[in-house]
Amino acid sequence: MQVVSRTFTPVCACTPVMVGFFQRTLRLRTALRHLSPHSTVLSAATRSPVDLRGSFLPAASWQRGVCCRTLHSGADGSRPSPAAAPDRLPFSRITGEDLAFFRKILPGRAITDPDLLESCNVDWLKSVRGSSEVLLRPQTTEEVSQILKYCNGRNLAVNPQGGNTGLVGGSVPVYDEVILSTALMNNILTLDSISGILTCQAGCVLENLSTYLEDRDYIMPLDLGAKGSCHIGGNVATNAGGLRLLRYGSLHGTVLGLEVVLADGRVLDCLATLRKDNTGYDLKQLFIGSEGTLGVITAVSILCPRKPKSVNVVFLGCETFEQLLKTFQLSRGMLGEILSAYEFLDSECMRLLNTHLKLPNPISDCSFYVVIETSGSDPTHDGEKLHNFLEEAMTSSLVTDGTVATEDSKIKALWSMRERVTEALTHDGFTYKYDVSLPVERIYQLVTDMRKHLGDRAKSVVGYGHVGDGNLHLNITSPVKDPALLAAIEPFVYEWTASCHGSISAEHGLGLKKRNYIYYSKPSQAVALMGNIKAMLDPKGILNPYKTLPDNLK
Amino acid sequence: MQVVSRTFTPVCACTPVMVGFFQRTLRLRTALRHLSPHSTVLSAATRSPVDLRGSFLPAASWQRGVCCRTLHSGADGSRPSPAAAPDRLPFSRITGEDLAFFRKILPGRAITDPDLLESCNVDWLKSVRGSSEVLLRPQTTEEVSQILKYCNGRNLAVNPQGGNTGLVGGSVPVYDEVILSTALMNNILTLDSISGILTCQAGCVLENLSTYLEDRDYIMPLDLGAKGSCHIGGNVATNAGGLRLLRYGSLHGTVLGLEVVLADGRVLDCLATLRKDNTGYDLKQLFIGSEGTLGVITAVSILCPRKPKSVNVVFLGCETFEQLLKTFQLSRGMLGEILSAYEFLDSECMRLLNTHLKLPNPISDCSFYVVIETSGSDPTHDGEKLHNFLEEAMTSSLVTDGTVATEDSKIKALWSMRERVTEALTHDGFTYKYDVSLPVERIYQLVTDMRKHLGDRAKSVVGYGHVGDGNLHLNITSPVKDPALLAAIEPFVYEWTASCHGSISAEHGLGLKKRNYIYYSKPSQAVALMGNIKAMLDPKGILNPYKTLPDNLK
Repeated sequence: MQVVSRTFTPVCACTPVMVGFFQRTLRLRTALRHLSPHSTVLSAATRSPVDLRGSFLPAASWQRGVCCRTLHSGADGSRPSPAAAPDRLPFSRITGEDLAFFRKILPGRAITDPDLLESCNVDWLKSVRGSSEVLLRPQTTEEVSQILKYCNGRNLAVNPQGGNTGLVGGSVPVYDEVILSTALMNNILTLDSISGILTCQAGCVLENLSTYLEDRDYIMPLDLGAKGSCHIGGNVATNAGGLRLLRYGSLHGTVLGLEVVLADGRVLDCLATLRKDNTGYDLKQLFIGSEGTLGVITAVSILCPRKPKSVNVVFLGCETFEQLLKTFQLSRGMLGEILSAYEFLDSECMRLLNTHLKLPNPISDCSFYVVIETSGSDPTHDGEKLHNFLEEAMTSSLVTDGTVATEDSKIKALWSMRERVTEALTHDGFTYKYDVSLPVERIYQLVTDMRKHLGDRAKSVVGYGHVGDGNLHLNITSPVKDPALLAAIEPFVYEWTASCHGSISAEHGLGLKKRNYIYYSKPSQAVALMGNIKAMLDPKGILNPYKTLPDNLK
Repeated sequence: MQVVSRTFTPVCACTPVMVGFFQRTLRLRTALRHLSPHSTVLSAATRSPVDLRGSFLPAASWQRGVCCRTLHSGADGSRPSPAAAPDRLPFSRITGEDLAFFRKILPGRAITDPDLLESCNVDWLKSVRGSSEVLLRPQTTEEVSQILKYCNGRNLAVNPQGGNTGLVGGSVPVYDEVILSTALMNNILTLDSISGILTCQAGCVLENLSTYLEDRDYIMPLDLGAKGSCHIGGNVATNAGGLRLLRYGSLHGTVLGLEVVLADGRVLDCLATLRKDNTGYDLKQLFIGSEGTLGVITAVSILCPRKPKSVNVVFLGCETFEQLLKTFQLSRGMLGEILSAYEFLDSECMRLLNTHLKLPNPISDCSFYVVIETSGSDPTHDGEKLHNFLEEAMTSSLVTDGTVATEDSKIKALWSMRERVTEALTHDGFTYKYDVSLPVERIYQLVTDMRKHLGDRAKSVVGYGHVGDGNLHLNITSPVKDPALLAAIEPFVYEWTASCHGSISAEHGLGLKKRNYIYYSKPSQAVALMGNIKAMLDPKGILNPYKTLPDNLK
């Protein structure tokens, strides 16, 4: 590819997104008032064993199951952050009798060895640590049912855990909750070779499912960086998005059935394997994205697409974000049904990849980089579509430079430019991570505005993400944890997002860290209804407490 | 195309679908026991103004808002059918004061003229008639909110109505419910030209939305026979499937946001226009497919696909259903991402089309006919894929004869062979209609088994539907209404479907007619939970009473 001169016509900002801005702002203000002095999380007396924002706490500093550390301060350095854990709720504490019961129903699978518990008590980012004293590893739905029935009767809180790859502190205990791991529930149950409908237990690792399916001419409809560890049950519980959402849609569409154990141990069998079923309310939808707070998913049925016969990846450079968006539009028109991903990273991401991971830029330096993937059923047709698209993108000077990959190793190399940004960031310093969803034409404006807003207070302000889904990952680094910087970022980032009717958590969920920010994206009416649903399904609140719903709910 | 000789290899029956058969049967029996003598619907004393199974009742035979006709008998000719309406629940009756209130808030739009009410009291099949005395035609969400707040306070039942094209008696009042029509809520609010996200009021007619979008290079992700009358709000409320589900998935995936007015008049604003939003439970999902029993949908946002640049339709003939399935598999592999519909009809359907509508068979006589549609972004590529597929299908003798259409008029003509089967059936006699979802390899077995089972008691037993979705429309005709025939069909058809873990209503919903059959497809645990959700959102039960949920719920 060669650099060609170009003329730029700006993409019009889409005015409809501003409709209702004032109503939304008003609603937000009203909702936030509810959060202030009366809420548990903002009480100055609150203490918690969780240290948010990344400082890892050695195990030795914790008493078993007891709060032992001053709450992480809030953005202003004086008050606890809405992200910090609230007081421990009055659940029972584990007794010897409880352990005896668990050991009886799960022989050899009720773990109390502190060394073995260590990794299940700490999240992947090492930013949240619980102090659970028991890890349960059921193998069957019946065992999960027995566990929950017992815990509900005893008022013991439970933290359902899949691959523990979540980014919002949803997958680990906050205090001494019993950890219920799906790791041993890893059987594939059926694959219908005609329809491509897979049923499996919740603890199947996503990558294992992918491998199984690819050998049988199918693929999973979702793919994400954590695929080597994450469980399909956890994916469904968090409504994971990932790299294929643009093409195959969300799990609300592809998950056809779920088996769920409710808080009191009842088994809810909605494990249908049908594409269509309009017999009553679609209950399974309630559990998709509920982060383990409404029930424990024990089995999943999911519609899998055919494995594409041809996959191509292109890495392109654009000078402006407007050009990147115009290129997206062009790709939707010219690549049409074979477009399977349209991802981006900015030049700051490239700098971090070069600096920290020594990954060279595969093309010449640009302001923005795009990873486009096509997946289709005919290599010749796909190649032609891609060629025509690239020719048009270059002729109309939307794209400055680029490279194409069709071989597996080169495809992986190009994808790693996008996938390893997170890793590069961890080397750059303490990272403040945001995962927002915005009208697509606005997504980079937030990065630009944040950069201006922070000036030289931040080390790096970078943007990357899923253009096709309107999903920006905004990351801000600092040499060390910096309360003043955090105070400058929040609530600025949330207010900015809310002003565009965006989502403050596009795909990561709310978990522990973001539960109290829910009102930036949801009206109080909706949050109250969520509270009613929680109370209906889990009246004692034993399932994944302190997560997803805000502290000020009745 | 020419007829070629062929060798047949049968498609293996997929054994996994039989897993759990015995448990399911057991569960079903247990659930059905709950339905028997204690349930309202089976009480011999029940009286109802609804005549099910198609006999149209003249308006004059009804007293205003009062039960006045003996309940339609059940399949055994002696007991009321589970499909018949239960006793009227103790809702208030409309007073002059109520009418004055409605006329005040909806000047000129609170209709009481019996002639104008006539069409809203009767369903499209003319099988269910209510006796509502008032039709309300709000224009805004605020008006809907005022209506429901008032009705809830007064304990007046409400029948939300869209285009009134439903097939299960869900869209009309059963007794004297207030009819709340969305017909005047027909404004398109926004279309984001980059993302293709449309927001509109609930009363927009599907075809009008399609026309609007096609002018702007997009299409609706759903298409169905009733598009000229049905409302998008009704489509969402019934989780309509239709002809494009194979390609674009269900409304649970494509609907991005809803605005809903709850039974007490509260407005629930979940009208997001984002592809990704994981901030709390996805409440809008509750209302998709809830048939107006949980809230009144007032606005919808939906993700629309790009308009294809090339559409082709093929009409093929196969000698056996196994060949038809093998052709489906072949089309999934060779047409891949451009396959947008795979529909079928049997030779009995063709006979009815020839006889009653004088539509000639476009190809030679076969046992089965397939309509395949492709939609793509490149006419040349699509044509090549189709050519290669057809060549392979003929060479391997899966297909006996066929014809291809690329021009609009011929495409329409071929589609009409599939779409006009319903119309042909109405000329054949009294029709018993079933809409079931089954593992795809089983769908025609039900037609064959039913034919054997009924012998010469039925006039015609025909099968057609959406192969790609495993959705069979089984229709049985008789010269006149025939209780003995009905007794032979039901519960045979439901038991057969349940034995395959199928759905007794794939896309039509349950409405009034099928509410008591829910246990054939859902375990009692799930139905009980649906009842809890109903009680939570609509404690007085004013919204679309007698629909969706079975009578025996607490």
